[in-house]
Amino acid sequence: MAAKGNLDRLRVVLVSTRNPLNIGAAARAMSNFGVSRLRVVNPFTPAFREAVSAVGAADLLQNAEEFSTVAEAIGDCSLVVGTTAAKDRELQHPLRVLQDGARIIRKRLTSGNVALLFGSEKHGLRNEELSHCHWLMRIPTSPTNFSMNLGQSVAVCLYEIARGGKIAPEGKIEKRAASAELDRLTETFLEAITLSGFIRHGAEALAEEKLRRLIRRLDINSPDGAVLTGMFRKILWKIHSKK
Amino acid sequence: MAAKGNLDRLRVVLVSTRNPLNIGAAARAMSNFGVSRLRVVNPFTPAFREAVSAVGAADLLQNAEEFSTVAEAIGDCSLVVGTTAAKDRELQHPLRVLQDGARIIRKRLTSGNVALLFGSEKHGLRNEELSHCHWLMRIPTSPTNFSMNLGQSVAVCLYEIARGGKIAPEGKIEKRAASAELDRLTETFLEAITLSGFIRHGAEALAEEKLRRLIRRLDINSPDGAVLTGMFRKILWKIHSKK
Repeated sequence: MAAKGNLDRLRVVLVSTRNPLNIGAAARAMSNFGVSRLRVVNPFTPAFREAVSAVGAADLLQNAEEFSTVAEAIGDCSLVVGTTAAKDRELQHPLRVLQDGARIIRKRLTSGNVALLFGSEKHGLRNEELSHCHWLMRIPTSPTNFSMNLGQSVAVCLYEIARGGKIAPEGKIEKRAASAELDRLTETFLEAITLSGFIRHGAEALAEEKLRRLIRRLDINSPDGAVLTGMFRKILWKIHSKK
Repeated sequence: MAAKGNLDRLRVVLVSTRNPLNIGAAARAMSNFGVSRLRVVNPFTPAFREAVSAVGAADLLQNAEEFSTVAEAIGDCSLVVGTTAAKDRELQHPLRVLQDGARIIRKRLTSGNVALLFGSEKHGLRNEELSHCHWLMRIPTSPTNFSMNLGQSVAVCLYEIARGGKIAPEGKIEKRAASAELDRLTETFLEAITLSGFIRHGAEALAEEKLRRLIRRLDINSPDGAVLTGMFRKILWKIHSKK
């Protein structure tokens, strides 16, 4: 993820949002990706701060700054990016796809504040609002249904902006089974299928080779290799005990 | 974006979703990113198909397939990926971050069907549901608010899977074993180790879950799956014949 300090310089600006649940959803997505500065311009309802959709982001929503014009909301930003679903409506502005735009935004965040504008659910950003933008950015969506839900759009943009930095190694990396372990497994497995009559007489050598290859293809980790070998030992014991 | 034909092999599987609006939002996000196959397992309300949140995706929602078990919903998929918000709850499964997981999913989509599972808003995927997964995937979110809204989570995952441009057809691609094939293998394997006394009394259910997970970790291709199942059938026959 991009360094936390840098994301503090990002302002998400929601302009003329109609549905307060969308403001809450945007706040939740911001919180998920470590972005905390929400600015709201002329929301449809002043009660947006109560939106129940801001799960885990109630504080962020409470601390949202409210403005009556875009100009005021972006006053402290050195780069202003408008989001749009349209492909070529606003030819006055350069249009970048999210992946390229996010790269530029990340770079700019190392030295200054960046505003990311989202227009109303109904009209998007209007011409006056767009006029404050340095360029526009669009999520590459399907031509047959290109318009995204506001909260989902905020989530995707912030995911892409927050990505790219160092991501700590996660979960545990599993040690693969060593060759000697795989050999032990092959041996017990082979004995079990030999005793069961799976292998035709005269084909033993070939069968062993095939089984060895098959077991290598399985890409077995070390603990699983031990468990499997134990299972086949038990199966062998059962077969022998019945003789 | 990934080639349209490949995304047709992707199935988004929503398990025990409580809020029908979230199903609609997931459908909208799917439609935005050119993914059309929605499967629903045990939704909280049967009226989910009317969700108004499926803007531009009403058809997709109408055509969603409904199942009562995860096993049925993923029967035709050779790779099953579970999504999780937790970092290390389910250590039985390998955990990949979205960026890495999406790369593997894109590759696999060139040759077979892939299921992407999303659990309920309340509990995520439960252990039995997870046991059908080959591995788990997580969106890199903030440690202080890591749990995402379902629709936003679907949007971010599909954005990442659909990205990355045209996928070149690859060299020789081995078809992975479909889930139904893996189920047959699990069944015969389980019977063999049960008859051998490998499993303690009272631990049968847990053993089945563990074995199912182990087999998913092995990454078995379709012909190998058939050979292995045949071997266990022979072993079973041997054990039974000695009684």
